[in-house]
Amino acid sequence: MSVTLEVIRKMQVIRLGLIGSGFMGRTHALAAHSVGLVFPSTAKLECELLADCDSQAAAENAGLLGFRRSTGDWRELVTDPQVDVVDICTPNHLHYPMAKAALENGKHVFCEKPLALLPEESRELAALAAARDCVTMVGFNYVKNPVITLAADLIERGEIGQLRHVRGTHVEDYLADPLREGGWRTQQSLAGLGALGDLCHVLSLTQRLVGEPGAVCADFQTVIPERPDGPVENEDQVHALLRFDCGAIGTIECSRIAWGRKNGLTLEISGSEGTLYFDQERQNELWLYRADGDERQGFRRILLGPDQPDYAAFCPAPGHGLGFNDLKVIEMRDLVAAIVLETPAWPDFAAAARIDAVTAAMAESYHRSGWVNVNRAATEDSEAQ
Amino acid sequence: MSVTLEVIRKMQVIRLGLIGSGFMGRTHALAAHSVGLVFPSTAKLECELLADCDSQAAAENAGLLGFRRSTGDWRELVTDPQVDVVDICTPNHLHYPMAKAALENGKHVFCEKPLALLPEESRELAALAAARDCVTMVGFNYVKNPVITLAADLIERGEIGQLRHVRGTHVEDYLADPLREGGWRTQQSLAGLGALGDLCHVLSLTQRLVGEPGAVCADFQTVIPERPDGPVENEDQVHALLRFDCGAIGTIECSRIAWGRKNGLTLEISGSEGTLYFDQERQNELWLYRADGDERQGFRRILLGPDQPDYAAFCPAPGHGLGFNDLKVIEMRDLVAAIVLETPAWPDFAAAARIDAVTAAMAESYHRSGWVNVNRAATEDSEAQ
Amino acid sequence: MSVTLEVIRKMQVIRLGLIGSGFMGRTHALAAHSVGLVFPSTAKLECELLADCDSQAAAENAGLLGFRRSTGDWRELVTDPQVDVVDICTPNHLHYPMAKAALENGKHVFCEKPLALLPEESRELAALAAARDCVTMVGFNYVKNPVITLAADLIERGEIGQLRHVRGTHVEDYLADPLREGGWRTQQSLAGLGALGDLCHVLSLTQRLVGEPGAVCADFQTVIPERPDGPVENEDQVHALLRFDCGAIGTIECSRIAWGRKNGLTLEISGSEGTLYFDQERQNELWLYRADGDERQGFRRILLGPDQPDYAAFCPAPGHGLGFNDLKVIEMRDLVAAIVLETPAWPDFAAAARIDAVTAAMAESYHRSGWVNVNRAATEDSEAQ
Amino acid sequence: MSVTLEVIRKMQVIRLGLIGSGFMGRTHALAAHSVGLVFPSTAKLECELLADCDSQAAAENAGLLGFRRSTGDWRELVTDPQVDVVDICTPNHLHYPMAKAALENGKHVFCEKPLALLPEESRELAALAAARDCVTMVGFNYVKNPVITLAADLIERGEIGQLRHVRGTHVEDYLADPLREGGWRTQQSLAGLGALGDLCHVLSLTQRLVGEPGAVCADFQTVIPERPDGPVENEDQVHALLRFDCGAIGTIECSRIAWGRKNGLTLEISGSEGTLYFDQERQNELWLYRADGDERQGFRRILLGPDQPDYAAFCPAPGHGLGFNDLKVIEMRDLVAAIVLETPAWPDFAAAARIDAVTAAMAESYHRSGWVNVNRAATEDSEAQ
Repeated sequence: MSVTLEVIRKMQVIRLGLIGSGFMGRTHALAAHSVGLVFPSTAKLECELLADCDSQAAAENAGLLGFRRSTGDWRELVTDPQVDVVDICTPNHLHYPMAKAALENGKHVFCEKPLALLPEESRELAALAAARDCVTMVGFNYVKNPVITLAADLIERGEIGQLRHVRGTHVEDYLADPLREGGWRTQQSLAGLGALGDLCHVLSLTQRLVGEPGAVCADFQTVIPERPDGPVENEDQVHALLRFDCGAIGTIECSRIAWGRKNGLTLEISGSEGTLYFDQERQNELWLYRADGDERQGFRRILLGPDQPDYAAFCPAPGHGLGFNDLKVIEMRDLVAAIVLETPAWPDFAAAARIDAVTAAMAESYHRSGWVNVNRAATEDSEAQ
Repeated sequence: MSVTLEVIRKMQVIRLGLIGSGFMGRTHALAAHSVGLVFPSTAKLECELLADCDSQAAAENAGLLGFRRSTGDWRELVTDPQVDVVDICTPNHLHYPMAKAALENGKHVFCEKPLALLPEESRELAALAAARDCVTMVGFNYVKNPVITLAADLIERGEIGQLRHVRGTHVEDYLADPLREGGWRTQQSLAGLGALGDLCHVLSLTQRLVGEPGAVCADFQTVIPERPDGPVENEDQVHALLRFDCGAIGTIECSRIAWGRKNGLTLEISGSEGTLYFDQERQNELWLYRADGDERQGFRRILLGPDQPDYAAFCPAPGHGLGFNDLKVIEMRDLVAAIVLETPAWPDFAAAARIDAVTAAMAESYHRSGWVNVNRAATEDSEAQ
Repeated sequence: MSVTLEVIRKMQVIRLGLIGSGFMGRTHALAAHSVGLVFPSTAKLECELLADCDSQAAAENAGLLGFRRSTGDWRELVTDPQVDVVDICTPNHLHYPMAKAALENGKHVFCEKPLALLPEESRELAALAAARDCVTMVGFNYVKNPVITLAADLIERGEIGQLRHVRGTHVEDYLADPLREGGWRTQQSLAGLGALGDLCHVLSLTQRLVGEPGAVCADFQTVIPERPDGPVENEDQVHALLRFDCGAIGTIECSRIAWGRKNGLTLEISGSEGTLYFDQERQNELWLYRADGDERQGFRRILLGPDQPDYAAFCPAPGHGLGFNDLKVIEMRDLVAAIVLETPAWPDFAAAARIDAVTAAMAESYHRSGWVNVNRAATEDSEAQ
Repeated sequence: MSVTLEVIRKMQVIRLGLIGSGFMGRTHALAAHSVGLVFPSTAKLECELLADCDSQAAAENAGLLGFRRSTGDWRELVTDPQVDVVDICTPNHLHYPMAKAALENGKHVFCEKPLALLPEESRELAALAAARDCVTMVGFNYVKNPVITLAADLIERGEIGQLRHVRGTHVEDYLADPLREGGWRTQQSLAGLGALGDLCHVLSLTQRLVGEPGAVCADFQTVIPERPDGPVENEDQVHALLRFDCGAIGTIECSRIAWGRKNGLTLEISGSEGTLYFDQERQNELWLYRADGDERQGFRRILLGPDQPDYAAFCPAPGHGLGFNDLKVIEMRDLVAAIVLETPAWPDFAAAARIDAVTAAMAESYHRSGWVNVNRAATEDSEAQ
């Protein structure tokens, strides 16, 4: 899935249209400006057009973020002939209409997660992208961490053997304080799911490393029902049992009220030959245990180094460390490469729709109080097209 | 639950009858000899009688382990008038008949975990102990770790507020290698449950710190169906969702095939004011996060020190560390104190029966593929007597 | 020392002239392009001119790195009227002549460390900068880590009291393998000092957090005297005892042959009220122990978050992590701010000259086999101007 | 240096005479009672006679600690014909006269560290022991940690190659609070050296793993000159540069005022093929880095397990952990084995005298403000006899 840039040979300019200039929009803009320096290639990503809620804010932010033009109406952006790829960094409930409009106009689309509020919307978008032959990508940035790429390589090479068990968490404490306002995040119509929707990154990691789950059994809980700005309409914490197609079983936990955990995206995967462990709070480390029967055996802390090409692009010396924003640069590189090479990007809308199918199955499991099979039929069709 | 020995004033000799002299029997013998030195009191624990599978082994081991007398027949031990407390360190399937016989003879009983193979047997033993007014204790030694006592104190004092979530594991790799023989552990008639039965320590920690779960939903898996010594009849790995009476929810995982984890008994408990984390592989450390809104906030690593009386008894300086065998000494101290003070020990047979009710509910949940309420009625009755 | 950008008000364009486009040059270019996005202000840093060893390489790299113009002769760059600040990213032995020429042409100068090969050269440059009223900065990027800023704040506020002891290391393994070529790094005429010159970052941290040492006693060792590309002319490992002006004592260790350590820049500072610990391999964490007499006391792991403004500029959520390249952006921000505000940057040439005085004293200490006072007279004069 | 008990064949009773029943005396008594259970052999260690400051205390403590007889006069103990080995657990300044008297009476001697207040006294005792053919041992218990034995094995097998650098610390905070009384520890006539004398364990580890240093250069500091109970007469913190005979160089640091460090006995040893790291606060772990050129390389955390015989004696399962008191049992086992096998124990008085020669050289180095050669001549003679 990693793309060697050496193969990118066609001279090409790709013009980016960005919707939204909040924190995430700014991060995308930064990545768009850096990607060519970090991953030099003959393709050139240009910051063409910025859309924001009104014309004035858009103009001002276009100046700050280095965009050529601006607009106060995102509908202008998705139809602009000078825009090749639409990048959606708006609140969750706007992802679906914007992505749909962009695809209908034949644009490539880069959309922040979650792709949509409803699984059928995600499936629809995936199908539309397939029909229009557009490159799509959803912003599961942590899956771009070279540590995850290394983990995937190790698993593929059989270093930990056949997978047996997975324990994944994405736990944070940003709403642990009951006096903190929930904003759009706690309203179902704007956010959809709560902790699970926001922190479903852990499912993109399992998708990459373990594959798809066929059945899930979940429990949801809204611990703080009322916040200063109104009632909380979605879950504060969720955990689930999963049965993966590959035969492994596992647990997943998401929480936005887990005091002390700031970016507790962790994964422990055990196999027949060893175990891998990862914690995004120490994002440059992978822990590996290999069962080779030696008294000197133990979990080894592998520190990211230039053996990993996506690390080497940032720094030729080991142990110097990547940060959160660097992962966005790698993500942007993958998007550009896919457009240039006319190959699918990853995770594309179909992959995201499969993640949304899992979260939907978890929600259903909670409401039905039992095991639920994941409904992937439609998304798998879309891939086959 | 911790007992100050200063209150033990009655001059008293307690005579121990030990059944079994394998590893666990030897550990108990060591603890029996050490307890008076580490926790000086006027009660004196004497190693009176050792029972083993045959007379010769018993005699030989009695010499090695410092017992006055020996016997090749455990039935002689449970009726011996010179024995005050029967200590059962035999394979799992013998716990029930031995404990029952000991109680019927009016003996106090210290039994290794699990108390019995079937939950109804555990309930029967708990009821019998209550009826005969015998002191009982089950060997959940990790719950005696002063770090757990400190955690319980912190929770009781509200340091982490109202409990919200629990993540517990007890994962090891002693049967991760498919070429390793399972022995009695993989035979249902001798061991009962597999990984869950063996590693239910994690449930004794949640019992101590979080309370009882009312409902569970579990998944079991036998990953290695066949070993060199025959088919495997119980589970290699199990995980479950739990709903605790106190309102917290949580997950529990047990595995005997988790490569690299040697004593992976871990617990993370989040509450409305903070979080606690514990890992038995670093048994002298407790991690505490307190939500007090300061920029200097973080998980702090509390290293066991003489602030904890049960640590101070071993060493007056902090950070010098207790080991596995020391926990058995604390356990033995609690048993002796309960007998002398004529109070219940903890965890007694009733507490163990409640743990067995949870594991039984988990097994039933797996077979019924859904949520199951824990049946505690009988055990709660027995306590009330 | 941290600069709030809110005070930067004057509309201003600053034009950068970069010499060298190896790894470090590329990192500087990336930072130059990002600084305005991460730290928006009315000052604008423009990539004006790139100098490289020959015209063709310069032209090609100017394209890749986003510079307007290029030259094959650095002397053209330092005299170019369109260049406001000269940024020197060349091998060590060229720092001195280039910085001197730039200052003589009235340019502001940003120079990678070490400032010069000889302490008298560093002193000369510091004096020259003071005389010409140029803003200067030396690239001790780790000192820009917001974790270090937090540590400095904590020390200033007395959180760990009066400083008593310091243990600093910068140990790596890039030349641990005797079959690896030393290149310019092992030749005295090109690199000056060996491990100490390369890894003197640790001294910039102590300078920031502890102050200046008055006396040192050091031991040097060249462990691998011969490499495939010739004899090794400088030290592989060095360690020293230090006596700081503030009364604290400490040890410093630098090594380029410490297997397994990739960026082992660590610092432990003990004071009368607590202790701080830092490890650049986990660059987003600061460990703090406060002696407040509570049984719950322990080292707490503070994870960098938006409480620190220099972190918040990159990410509004805690625990998401900065990387190596982000530190260069902060450094570039400080340089720009100093030029705009017409204040000294830090660490400027005078500060770097004091570090070079310490390393020179260490080398002398080794040769004289005893304690040596650090000769700071000249550099302190230059500050006073 | 490790002794397999299988070779102990002679039926033998060894009678212990213990002087002192404070914390350390109690720890020794506990070890004496446990050693036969943990390490079964045909030799039997019997607790024969306890000496304490007065007859009444001695009698009372003899009861508590399981000794047959008691005396209020240690001179009676060292001449008692029923005592085979004299075990000295008294304050530092009494070690020399007691050990001398015991040797003069032909007793084997187990003495807590430091062996004496003056290096010439240590040398005298070593010579006396050699002349009388007595088994001697000094209580450097941490060197008995099976993790250190594993480290020694790894070094001996060349796993980390030729040793290049050592960084050792033993830092604690027991006198970090200036309001805490120093007691005998801060009085030169009773304690001799301060932090260095108390925490010279780190030198026993380097002695075991790296060998002897030939030259040292040290700095001493008394940070808190006055305590509630009077002036402080010895150092609070000390650090030193060392040159070992094997060619490695290193630093050593001892402190009793390092807030937050409770038992900070750490050691990092780098060699031509790898690095070892150890921290007594996590006493069951050894970290090993092997330079074998693989991208999966990293420090591995080896958790003590039954591969190490001295661990297996306590517990057959890995990761269950030894504690401080267990190390004393191993130490006692080595003493018993040496007496039975008529071989030297380790570290004997000659080894301790060499450590005392190093600490004396450090003190001299501080007073002379420069490098000092370690005077080992006499102690090496004593070994040769």
